[in-house]
Amino acid sequence: MIAEEVSRKLRASGKTVALAESCTGGLIASLLTDIPGSSDIFQLSLVTYSDRSKVELLGVKQGTLDRHGAVSEAVASEMAAGARKAGRADLGLAVTGIAGPGGGSLQKPVGLVCICVDDGRVQVTGSKLFPGDRHAVKRAASEHALSMLMSRI
Amino acid sequence: MIAEEVSRKLRASGKTVALAESCTGGLIASLLTDIPGSSDIFQLSLVTYSDRSKVELLGVKQGTLDRHGAVSEAVASEMAAGARKAGRADLGLAVTGIAGPGGGSLQKPVGLVCICVDDGRVQVTGSKLFPGDRHAVKRAASEHALSMLMSRI
Repeated sequence: MIAEEVSRKLRASGKTVALAESCTGGLIASLLTDIPGSSDIFQLSLVTYSDRSKVELLGVKQGTLDRHGAVSEAVASEMAAGARKAGRADLGLAVTGIAGPGGGSLQKPVGLVCICVDDGRVQVTGSKLFPGDRHAVKRAASEHALSMLMSRI
Repeated sequence: MIAEEVSRKLRASGKTVALAESCTGGLIASLLTDIPGSSDIFQLSLVTYSDRSKVELLGVKQGTLDRHGAVSEAVASEMAAGARKAGRADLGLAVTGIAGPGGGSLQKPVGLVCICVDDGRVQVTGSKLFPGDRHAVKRAASEHALSMLMSRI
């Protein structure tokens, strides 16, 4: 399981991760904390569903939200940096997307998810369209985000 | 499912909830956000695994942690108040406990979970010992916490 691999690799390298989750809604935190001893590698997830909580707790700029929308690589990038800082962690992982069934548009359909990993030097950001219902999008986005994290540990 | 009932009752009463999760590790947030339209009733969960994040993000007092330990009704109470405030929500729900397999003691065995619901006027706090492994404790504590929340909406 990817969460176990991530956990093992973080522990082996003595690194920690902090999360900022929007559309995954706490699922990534829950997957990581399913693993015994996860408090060594995980201290914090900010599950920020509202724009206001993204601004107040993660330091996402209101201008970035206004210009790009909450589901954008620009916002994912600021969320990842904010999570890393808030958790004083080595790595920040952020996910923002549209889990559905509502909230989609032609430009930003249901299933669109933007992910960013911030290791303090480099940010890797990506967008992906996941098929399926709300559960499937949450699950697939969580696993994909953990894979992206894995490659930066 | 209790998360659906909570979601429905919150929506019907026009109320919102903010969470502070320690041992449940994001599972309560994930259960609530499994439900379409949950952004109407849920804005924020602070998954604070470390003591430092409890202090910095939820306003838990270091003295309370020192005197009572992170797994205590006193800390759950401060976490719930902190979540409610951080999320500017009508209700704050906090959970802190020992999911195991490590971390237990004679006084505070694995499976001990402290829960608090804060509605801005009254706090209801309780402790309960849940049987089973890490997954079972996380799941049962999440469902019990949601039941406690349900009775305060």
